[in-house]
Amino acid sequence: MYLGRVIGNIWSTVKDERLTGQRLLVVQPLTPELKPTGKQLICTDAMGCGAGELIYWVKGKEACMPFLPTEVPVDTTIVGIVDEVHVDRNK
Amino acid sequence: MYLGRVIGNIWSTVKDERLTGQRLLVVQPLTPELKPTGKQLICTDAMGCGAGELIYWVKGKEACMPFLPTEVPVDTTIVGIVDEVHVDRNK
Amino acid sequence: MYLGRVIGNIWSTVKDERLTGQRLLVVQPLTPELKPTGKQLICTDAMGCGAGELIYWVKGKEACMPFLPTEVPVDTTIVGIVDEVHVDRNK
Amino acid sequence: MYLGRVIGNIWSTVKDERLTGQRLLVVQPLTPELKPTGKQLICTDAMGCGAGELIYWVKGKEACMPFLPTEVPVDTTIVGIVDEVHVDRNK
Amino acid sequence: MYLGRVIGNIWSTVKDERLTGQRLLVVQPLTPELKPTGKQLICTDAMGCGAGELIYWVKGKEACMPFLPTEVPVDTTIVGIVDEVHVDRNK
Repeated sequence: MYLGRVIGNIWSTVKDERLTGQRLLVVQPLTPELKPTGKQLICTDAMGCGAGELIYWVKGKEACMPFLPTEVPVDTTIVGIVDEVHVDRNK
Repeated sequence: MYLGRVIGNIWSTVKDERLTGQRLLVVQPLTPELKPTGKQLICTDAMGCGAGELIYWVKGKEACMPFLPTEVPVDTTIVGIVDEVHVDRNK
Repeated sequence: MYLGRVIGNIWSTVKDERLTGQRLLVVQPLTPELKPTGKQLICTDAMGCGAGELIYWVKGKEACMPFLPTEVPVDTTIVGIVDEVHVDRNK
Repeated sequence: MYLGRVIGNIWSTVKDERLTGQRLLVVQPLTPELKPTGKQLICTDAMGCGAGELIYWVKGKEACMPFLPTEVPVDTTIVGIVDEVHVDRNK
Repeated sequence: MYLGRVIGNIWSTVKDERLTGQRLLVVQPLTPELKPTGKQLICTDAMGCGAGELIYWVKGKEACMPFLPTEVPVDTTIVGIVDEVHVDRNK
């Protein structure tokens, strides 16, 4: 999984019908030190996240899992909200 | 999913037979600020997109889903058209 | 899918038995303007491509599809030959 | 698989319910010479790793396998602890 | 598939039990001109490769195929040994 922050959302009316009712959030990937890293992407949200929230997301086939048994055509999904990150680079 | 803009198409007569009837669009990935980012790719189109349209696309196994139960050998598919993008980087 | 050009091939006698009879072509990825971009790779060929040909290829699990029901252990396969590429960046 | 070192962990209370009880470790990818390379990520841990430990991890659909038959929505999982790395670049 | 050379191996005693008996080789990806390119990785070996050998490998879900019906949690596997590479960039 990858760290990120919710920085926005997109509106879309014409879309694959299985995407109906899914929120589409713009996510900025972050390092564990919470610095932006890499390209922003659009995640579906299985958690009810708000703007600015620190989250982690999965990509690939696993991104569909929270929506099973419906096979939603998504490849990036938020699966949790981060309370705290602990990093010790000296170890 | 990833933001992009339709910037062209390709014609192909010799192809895997399950690709027959699929439109093949050239897509330029974009940032949420709609700046080009990364390599152009070829997406199938499940939405009926036109040139210049702002879209989002999925990659990987999920790209086949709009065409199920036929197993079309594609790995990148447009699944929606973007109405609006909202980004607030201060949050 | 991604644009590319066939620039060579490889010979291999010791290989997974399900690869027997598969041609292994060296492909240079291209931009829509047909400039080289990114790393060369080895694709199986479901189309009968020749050297120098302009093609498009899929990656990931989808690369197995042209060979089903045999589960060939490949992750990159040529699925079509390009006749023409149209790109209009002003749109 | 890819080499890495466990450099931290994250706490998360709001998450997909199938992630309950999974430890979420922050991993720094390494070269075979044990130099940091590329972006840190969050792995689930099927091995009981401690901070500072040298490990290898899988990504993609395979990351779910240690948890089957439960379909846990993860895409990066530690599957082993490294005892020794031998590299001979002259060969 | 991708070209590479076997440049080492790793020893690991604590690992997912389905990895028992699998050799874990360190692979340096190569261009068709046999220059190093990109990050080294750890591949399982379905071919019995030796150090220094020129090989090609698959990544993703396909990497499990040589070990089916056992679902081994691997994402990169050597599937063949290269005899010769032919590249003609003028075509």
